[in-house]
Amino acid sequence: MRDVAIVGIGITKFGEHWNSGLKELITEAGIKAVEDAGISGKDIQLIIGGSMSSGLFVGQEHTGALFTDYLGLNPVPAIRTEAACASSSVALFTGVMAIQSGRYDCVVVGGVEKMTDVYGNLATTALAGAMDRDNEAHFGLTFPGVYALMAQRHMYQYGTTREQMAMVAVKNHENAMHNPNAQFHRKITVEDVLNSPLVSDPLRLLDCSPIADGAAALIIVPAEHAKKYTDTPVYIRASAQASDTLGLYMRPDITTVGATISAVQNAYRQAGLRPGDIDFAEVHDCFTINEIIATEDLGFCRKGEGGNLVQSGDTMIGGRIPVNTSGGLKAKGHPVGATGAAQVVELVEQLRGEAGGRQVSGAENGLAHNVGGSGSTVVVHIMSRNRK
Amino acid sequence: MRDVAIVGIGITKFGEHWNSGLKELITEAGIKAVEDAGISGKDIQLIIGGSMSSGLFVGQEHTGALFTDYLGLNPVPAIRTEAACASSSVALFTGVMAIQSGRYDCVVVGGVEKMTDVYGNLATTALAGAMDRDNEAHFGLTFPGVYALMAQRHMYQYGTTREQMAMVAVKNHENAMHNPNAQFHRKITVEDVLNSPLVSDPLRLLDCSPIADGAAALIIVPAEHAKKYTDTPVYIRASAQASDTLGLYMRPDITTVGATISAVQNAYRQAGLRPGDIDFAEVHDCFTINEIIATEDLGFCRKGEGGNLVQSGDTMIGGRIPVNTSGGLKAKGHPVGATGAAQVVELVEQLRGEAGGRQVSGAENGLAHNVGGSGSTVVVHIMSRNRK
Repeated sequence: MRDVAIVGIGITKFGEHWNSGLKELITEAGIKAVEDAGISGKDIQLIIGGSMSSGLFVGQEHTGALFTDYLGLNPVPAIRTEAACASSSVALFTGVMAIQSGRYDCVVVGGVEKMTDVYGNLATTALAGAMDRDNEAHFGLTFPGVYALMAQRHMYQYGTTREQMAMVAVKNHENAMHNPNAQFHRKITVEDVLNSPLVSDPLRLLDCSPIADGAAALIIVPAEHAKKYTDTPVYIRASAQASDTLGLYMRPDITTVGATISAVQNAYRQAGLRPGDIDFAEVHDCFTINEIIATEDLGFCRKGEGGNLVQSGDTMIGGRIPVNTSGGLKAKGHPVGATGAAQVVELVEQLRGEAGGRQVSGAENGLAHNVGGSGSTVVVHIMSRNRK
Repeated sequence: MRDVAIVGIGITKFGEHWNSGLKELITEAGIKAVEDAGISGKDIQLIIGGSMSSGLFVGQEHTGALFTDYLGLNPVPAIRTEAACASSSVALFTGVMAIQSGRYDCVVVGGVEKMTDVYGNLATTALAGAMDRDNEAHFGLTFPGVYALMAQRHMYQYGTTREQMAMVAVKNHENAMHNPNAQFHRKITVEDVLNSPLVSDPLRLLDCSPIADGAAALIIVPAEHAKKYTDTPVYIRASAQASDTLGLYMRPDITTVGATISAVQNAYRQAGLRPGDIDFAEVHDCFTINEIIATEDLGFCRKGEGGNLVQSGDTMIGGRIPVNTSGGLKAKGHPVGATGAAQVVELVEQLRGEAGGRQVSGAENGLAHNVGGSGSTVVVHIMSRNRK
């Protein structure tokens, strides 16, 4: 199997783009990625694009063909992948296979979502499609509700505090100050979080990632070709995906995400690395509690100590294991189908040493952790500045 | 690159399943495929499932995780692919790459759609997501309208007659009489078609494929392992996909589907076969005119002669090139996300010699042609009883 490298990245600003639809967003991200890789459209052989719910948000399915058409690349084949908020990490997982198959030497992987100013359906309705519609959403459970249940149990079982959850949001807003593409450029305090409106107890407004419009794209090639394109390729050391029950209510323990553990164990094995070898990580902080759970499940601390980890400062830039240097879903924004690809854009910028005011010094190995639904799909990628 | 073979198939009856949702449909098709291959769940390493618009139809996205969960296969990774009515052929195209990558040795590929008794949105609304929402559907164009435009132009340019289109429906209803899984078991006449209600001039009700519920699944493995599973594997000789503009209005010629021509040329090249080597084909007769256009674009007759081809009887079982022996989308039914996989189920049954009253005698090579939207995505597979 061939190794795979990333030689180009493109991303839009995340936020409310009232003058841009799917077409404008993917075109901007795609063209930036093509320009970053120094290639032309003729080089592209396959397109794989994630989008969670373009049908419910804007009435547009068939977004693979839309990608190809609006990037001017017909008749290049296009695959849309969907796995809720992990849609574009699944696109990358699929793209890695496409390169490994030997069939394609240059693939565009990306993701997009248009969630504001939408067509008929509110975000809460569409996002509920990521959980078990029949057995959860139908009875009134919402996504903040799902993660509130996990938070309540985590607080009960491990003593995680309300303040520790708030510290996740404070850190990620601070990091986003240095990310020009982030949705929010506003420092917040623990008190701001604790005084923000209650959404689903114990989660408050500032515990929740915002809805957003945005797109991100990556150009991937066989590792042995990478230096033809750039002096600073980023190598994909592991691409791993796992599934768990669609419904949260079917799980034996809701303080952990089993698919994260399956995926990350596989990823560490593929990469030949351990948690201590990871220099920084982008993790799926759709709600603050989920960053705490993720840092435990990924092995950055022991189970139940994720709250203490953020409180210790170890996950800040300059700490032992910086988490969500981009601002995370919380402050960078969370256009769901674009989030996985955007996490990887952050990994690439850090590993190239191009992350500016949020640069992790000496970053050699980064990890991206993207969750669909309440953890029914988890994708973990590990990337490195060096090939092995 | 490894060759790929199909060693198991499963399909539900197509039609109105008022007591079955997505979960029941995929479970039935998946378990039948597993039983047909003589494997157990533990053998399955990856799931790739197509669904066009489960979000709009039943409020459920994240259908990959749903597949894995309800087939009892967690933590096996799952990818949902979407390309409108070609969603599950894109799943197979992706599955072929997964086997070719060397990473997986046993993959379930399938598709599902639940279109009747649905959640809030009418089929016409959801299906319009396969075309250009902003520039076509927004102005009132529907899918019958798209194909009516193609039919009008084909009649004008090539003299194709209303009666020839009706003959497509008559043939496919006749074929479906021998397919126990078909939605319709009712012979019709040319007069029935011509007297059926006008939907979008010149297309009448009996020119249109019906909406349906259904699912289909395939078990694919490396060709060199196939004989371990079955004495009658079917070999995938070509897997090709191409894209064209999302909107019909952007095309220079609407009597042809450019992506069909791109994909089939690639497929013939991969297989080392020519149109004359194909013994039978399943083609995308979402509307009768599209079977006529497809037989031309696939090279079974010259451009403009598709109407004469069906009139000649050459596409009947026993004719020179039987088309839609299963009953086609027209009479077998068209649960959009399941259709591509269902076409392949028919190829496998024919190539195994298990097609009963609709068997094409001596079938060695079959072709499946699956269209998304008005031809924005086309996937062509060629399969054979023998490996080369």
